[in-house]
Amino acid sequence: MRLYIGLIHYPVYNKNEEVIASAITTLDLHDMARVAKTYEVRQFFVITPLEDQQELAQRVQRHWTEGYGATYNPLRKEAIELVSVVSSLSEARSEIEEREGEPPLCVATDAARQQGRGISWKALRDLLEQEKTAILLFGTAWGLHKTVIEGADYVLEPIWGKRDYNHLSVRSAAAILLDRLAGRNP
Amino acid sequence: MRLYIGLIHYPVYNKNEEVIASAITTLDLHDMARVAKTYEVRQFFVITPLEDQQELAQRVQRHWTEGYGATYNPLRKEAIELVSVVSSLSEARSEIEEREGEPPLCVATDAARQQGRGISWKALRDLLEQEKTAILLFGTAWGLHKTVIEGADYVLEPIWGKRDYNHLSVRSAAAILLDRLAGRNP
Repeated sequence: MRLYIGLIHYPVYNKNEEVIASAITTLDLHDMARVAKTYEVRQFFVITPLEDQQELAQRVQRHWTEGYGATYNPLRKEAIELVSVVSSLSEARSEIEEREGEPPLCVATDAARQQGRGISWKALRDLLEQEKTAILLFGTAWGLHKTVIEGADYVLEPIWGKRDYNHLSVRSAAAILLDRLAGRNP
Repeated sequence: MRLYIGLIHYPVYNKNEEVIASAITTLDLHDMARVAKTYEVRQFFVITPLEDQQELAQRVQRHWTEGYGATYNPLRKEAIELVSVVSSLSEARSEIEEREGEPPLCVATDAARQQGRGISWKALRDLLEQEKTAILLFGTAWGLHKTVIEGADYVLEPIWGKRDYNHLSVRSAAAILLDRLAGRNP
């Protein structure tokens, strides 16, 4: 599959619906990189325009790929190697287009705000199985800013469990969606 | 569904295959409680014999259910309320038996060690849909000690993504398995 994921730290909402650049959570990088490796995601873009936050993400990556962590835990190394720190979504899209020879479909994830361009995970799985290139976008903090959602080609249907509670961490949401989209047992 | 989950901090392995009691990771509590709430798990047992660690877990719970956190984020409160801190698996089993009128099936999760009593997630989903009472056991650190696995009624098949990398965090594994076992779209 030509599947990529992006974790967006700007522009996202805070609790008061203001636009912010969120801080890197190192555990997001670890958990999502391991999920990405498990489901053979081609690259995991960590997207932030803040230089100190880019540096933090790169430091985490270096520790586990070159530093002490690489020998301490080689399995972690294999996962963290998938991380690519970029300053914007358009930079991620350019990197993907260069590698794949076509621009990726941008698929936003959003727990609450339903839009017209919704797509079910089964339909997206079909597209991926047809070797379509796509990047799945996750928002940090209180979610992706509407400009990201409006600029996406599709908005993935929210994860529903039993009733109407769907307030998962971005780490949990990424795990569940990649299992649905790319797992052996759909 | 009569589904429970347990996060076991003792007995588990460390990196060198020694038996240890692991420390509480507060993010495990948050992520797994929100997943549990999403999929209507009846109770999320946090299992540790260490009193200071029990106290830590209870303090986290109180903060979000009674303290400032409860008003700051009521959705978090709903999830964290599912947490029950107990000192052993047998204590969790007794609580479940008292509530359900029958002892739960104990289902261990294990990424690597395959045993004779394996069960597929589809077969377990069927049992749950027949209203069987069950507790799904997750290990912290480097995984559940063999005595827990040997004492379980079943061992759930590992999560496989694409090839042979299956080194997920316990948070990610719990999210994926509950979606498979209790999600609307199996």
